[in-house]
Amino acid sequence: MSLIVYLSGEIHTDWRDEIERGAKAHNLDILFTAPVTDHDASDAAGDCLGEESNSFWRDHKSAKVNAIRTRTLIEQADLVVVRFGDKYKQWNAAFDAGYCAALDKPYITLHDEALIHPLKEVDAAAQAWATTTEQVVEILRYVLKP
Amino acid sequence: MSLIVYLSGEIHTDWRDEIERGAKAHNLDILFTAPVTDHDASDAAGDCLGEESNSFWRDHKSAKVNAIRTRTLIEQADLVVVRFGDKYKQWNAAFDAGYCAALDKPYITLHDEALIHPLKEVDAAAQAWATTTEQVVEILRYVLKP
Amino acid sequence: MSLIVYLSGEIHTDWRDEIERGAKAHNLDILFTAPVTDHDASDAAGDCLGEESNSFWRDHKSAKVNAIRTRTLIEQADLVVVRFGDKYKQWNAAFDAGYCAALDKPYITLHDEALIHPLKEVDAAAQAWATTTEQVVEILRYVLKP
Amino acid sequence: MSLIVYLSGEIHTDWRDEIERGAKAHNLDILFTAPVTDHDASDAAGDCLGEESNSFWRDHKSAKVNAIRTRTLIEQADLVVVRFGDKYKQWNAAFDAGYCAALDKPYITLHDEALIHPLKEVDAAAQAWATTTEQVVEILRYVLKP
Amino acid sequence: MSLIVYLSGEIHTDWRDEIERGAKAHNLDILFTAPVTDHDASDAAGDCLGEESNSFWRDHKSAKVNAIRTRTLIEQADLVVVRFGDKYKQWNAAFDAGYCAALDKPYITLHDEALIHPLKEVDAAAQAWATTTEQVVEILRYVLKP
Amino acid sequence: MSLIVYLSGEIHTDWRDEIERGAKAHNLDILFTAPVTDHDASDAAGDCLGEESNSFWRDHKSAKVNAIRTRTLIEQADLVVVRFGDKYKQWNAAFDAGYCAALDKPYITLHDEALIHPLKEVDAAAQAWATTTEQVVEILRYVLKP
Amino acid sequence: MSLIVYLSGEIHTDWRDEIERGAKAHNLDILFTAPVTDHDASDAAGDCLGEESNSFWRDHKSAKVNAIRTRTLIEQADLVVVRFGDKYKQWNAAFDAGYCAALDKPYITLHDEALIHPLKEVDAAAQAWATTTEQVVEILRYVLKP
Amino acid sequence: MSLIVYLSGEIHTDWRDEIERGAKAHNLDILFTAPVTDHDASDAAGDCLGEESNSFWRDHKSAKVNAIRTRTLIEQADLVVVRFGDKYKQWNAAFDAGYCAALDKPYITLHDEALIHPLKEVDAAAQAWATTTEQVVEILRYVLKP
Repeated sequence: MSLIVYLSGEIHTDWRDEIERGAKAHNLDILFTAPVTDHDASDAAGDCLGEESNSFWRDHKSAKVNAIRTRTLIEQADLVVVRFGDKYKQWNAAFDAGYCAALDKPYITLHDEALIHPLKEVDAAAQAWATTTEQVVEILRYVLKP
Repeated sequence: MSLIVYLSGEIHTDWRDEIERGAKAHNLDILFTAPVTDHDASDAAGDCLGEESNSFWRDHKSAKVNAIRTRTLIEQADLVVVRFGDKYKQWNAAFDAGYCAALDKPYITLHDEALIHPLKEVDAAAQAWATTTEQVVEILRYVLKP
Repeated sequence: MSLIVYLSGEIHTDWRDEIERGAKAHNLDILFTAPVTDHDASDAAGDCLGEESNSFWRDHKSAKVNAIRTRTLIEQADLVVVRFGDKYKQWNAAFDAGYCAALDKPYITLHDEALIHPLKEVDAAAQAWATTTEQVVEILRYVLKP
Repeated sequence: MSLIVYLSGEIHTDWRDEIERGAKAHNLDILFTAPVTDHDASDAAGDCLGEESNSFWRDHKSAKVNAIRTRTLIEQADLVVVRFGDKYKQWNAAFDAGYCAALDKPYITLHDEALIHPLKEVDAAAQAWATTTEQVVEILRYVLKP
Repeated sequence: MSLIVYLSGEIHTDWRDEIERGAKAHNLDILFTAPVTDHDASDAAGDCLGEESNSFWRDHKSAKVNAIRTRTLIEQADLVVVRFGDKYKQWNAAFDAGYCAALDKPYITLHDEALIHPLKEVDAAAQAWATTTEQVVEILRYVLKP
Repeated sequence: MSLIVYLSGEIHTDWRDEIERGAKAHNLDILFTAPVTDHDASDAAGDCLGEESNSFWRDHKSAKVNAIRTRTLIEQADLVVVRFGDKYKQWNAAFDAGYCAALDKPYITLHDEALIHPLKEVDAAAQAWATTTEQVVEILRYVLKP
Repeated sequence: MSLIVYLSGEIHTDWRDEIERGAKAHNLDILFTAPVTDHDASDAAGDCLGEESNSFWRDHKSAKVNAIRTRTLIEQADLVVVRFGDKYKQWNAAFDAGYCAALDKPYITLHDEALIHPLKEVDAAAQAWATTTEQVVEILRYVLKP
Repeated sequence: MSLIVYLSGEIHTDWRDEIERGAKAHNLDILFTAPVTDHDASDAAGDCLGEESNSFWRDHKSAKVNAIRTRTLIEQADLVVVRFGDKYKQWNAAFDAGYCAALDKPYITLHDEALIHPLKEVDAAAQAWATTTEQVVEILRYVLKP
């Protein structure tokens, strides 16, 4: 059994690497995908289409270019891991979770105990809530058990 | 033409009333729906099913009971308005927006300029971004133009 | 807000009546639907199409005629309550739950604590697990809160 | 022609092996998939996410982790075989059958004559009912006829 | 419970009237719909769009105009009855049955024993096979049992 | 039988009125819907959300507000009539036709012979091509034949 | 560009071979699939599941086993060719066409002029009508043009 | 990450080559697909099925044969680029855009500033608007960023 796993959310810590390393250590047959995680590049994704004086439209163009990648990858994924860190609003992560929920695409949340209450709707539609990347790897191991 | 409009998001200001009053003032044929907006009642939605010592499970049960209502109403709606206020994490609002996006259900966001950047992915999939309830009412008037 | 609620499962106790009476007592705007609950009539649903010497085919014809009703009602429902009693195999109830899960139709299970373990997969995809009809009514009241 | 066949249900006899051996003996181009069939591992699937004092939540977490695997595999399958043995409640097997029915995924049931009546709804939506693994292999041979 | 029933197929006998009369006699709450059953009008459905010298295109235009009605009504129906008589090719009836099967719309076939073998694929996907309109009415009564 | 018919396309002649009058003259039970046909109002649909210095964004906002109405009405319609006049680019009309085609929503085109070649892809997916509003009315009469 | 083409319908002439040979002669990258075309084997497809005294049930079981293959292959196909010969009822071919139409799966019909009128509904939903296998090959060549 | 990109629209300039060369220069893992871009061949696509005296039907047959290719490729694509040139009606390009919009398939428009106003509905549902092929390549590079 092989799996495509999309890693959504926080881009300022190396949680993606930890999961990928863990999966590799156990020889799991997983293709990991992700959004562009370079923050500046992501904010500038639409700049090549022409400058905008208005910040709303600059963000708008970049967000739509990013969506070409993120929605395609979410739709191709078998499983999505959505990570919420302790900074920023991270509404895009919650948006991805809602997108998965509507598509009936299974997802796991990854966040600290401190976020339980504000994330209760997001967790309610998830298949699992993990607090560490080790737990995510453990679940992936189980799911791919021969 | 009539419309079913679901009002998602912030529950601590009276933006829903403002929109409903505005729509009424213009005799718009709209059925407005909403989540349970009583914060305490919402947090306790699952309590009747038995007490939980663990706060995660209490939240979990309540969030799932709430989802019976919110998903049904979102699916019945022709249009969703998603309001982001200036407090709290409001991940459930972003979750609803993602849910709408995946269902191809049109939604309008309602938030201040200060939130443009963190909400860029949510706005990118919206049909409109409004900053005041008057603007929302104006759009509803236009959409329902005889 | 109004709701269509399909009451699936056990047909040998009066749990449907209890829920309907409870809903009525609270003036809830709910249309309750159900399979044919007369056991003998249900087993004989296909007999009018000709006798069968083989019990498999008799059951087959009746089950298919019953499915005309049950699937139509499940698809029309906003919410399904699936009741597991303490007798019989009740595979049709679990089948209905799986059917709901695949359609993303919210359902509530209603069963005793004794059945927790064998029903874990069925409960895992449910929006709530209740042990009494009072709890089901309580949830319906909450979901329909004005 | 090749086929992906998911083998759902009973995990206490070696019916999966029998079918796989039979398919191999006839050089059928089939990829067989299955849930985790180690009973204890399956019950403990969610334990890595933290201990639960309450058995309902332990089961809940494990069932949801298992569902990541089972739903993905059912959706990838071209055909599902659902086995009902003579022990246990096996509601998960009936749940899988209902899930397949709603997705219009063809499935075959495999059970003894003694279970005809309680399984009539499950059989009614199946493409075939077999009583032996040899019959299942025979059908697979026919379906894959060059 | 009410039902929308589309009566597809043979247009040269009064089987539709028989079923409608039977349903009325039992006060069943059913809305019956049907294709245009006036053979000449049906063949001429597209003539108002301009004459055709080529019979293929005349038939083509009429068949497409008829499809506006038939597909809309099939999609609105809860149940379809497909009647095969003893004359003509009746490929449109089999086409409707295939259309229903792909939509997972339940249908009943109505035909004589003589047609069992050539209709086996059509019957295999049906919820019931009836040989008389009385049997169809009997099933409708059962399905609508209060 | 009743019908919801969406009238898409050209907004500078009174073809919609002609069809509505024709339908009324024959007492057809049809609810006609349409986009906002006031050209200036349509171009200004998004202006209430704030001025734009850039014409692209002004058009963008208005087009998205219009889409709230047009997509909702197209999805609610049983049949769409798409009118191409002899002026302007009318890409929105072709866009609506493509939208209908993908949704399997039946549509009729209404245009002169002079446009046959450039509209061949649009006509290829249509249920009928009419050149006059009388023909459209004639088809509606046929489709609604009692 | 490559294509999966399912060849549905008549099993008593060698039209499938003609098309496959023609495609090979032009080096077209096509995977052709088909139902089991051995008439006796097809009628006996369900016999391994146990004998039936009643011919309806024998046909029923075989038709359902055949459907495991045919529906899977139709759903995997990019294009379906449906052949109607001059003998037999061939309702299964019309059933397949209706099934394709509802799934929005493009299909081509292949039949003589003599069958134009009875096949008008089937042809109306087809992408093309061919009278010879050479024409089908010609279309395949065009569709796969580099 | 790899991508399938369908290049829809204008067939009289070499914009497709420019994009393909640009993608190749950056070693992007993209499979580009397109309609048949030989204008005469495209107009004659249905001629092998028999001559037509009426130009509407000649166009009709060719457009339907072309649709076998174009719809299959659009559905297989992860992203569509829709090019509008400065000549011709190009309604097929707008039709493809509408088709993509309804399927929730992301598309980019490629056209000059002069076409902003008439294409506003088409642009409103697009993920990006580009004016040069270099911009399209730039977006593809970003989307495929490792």
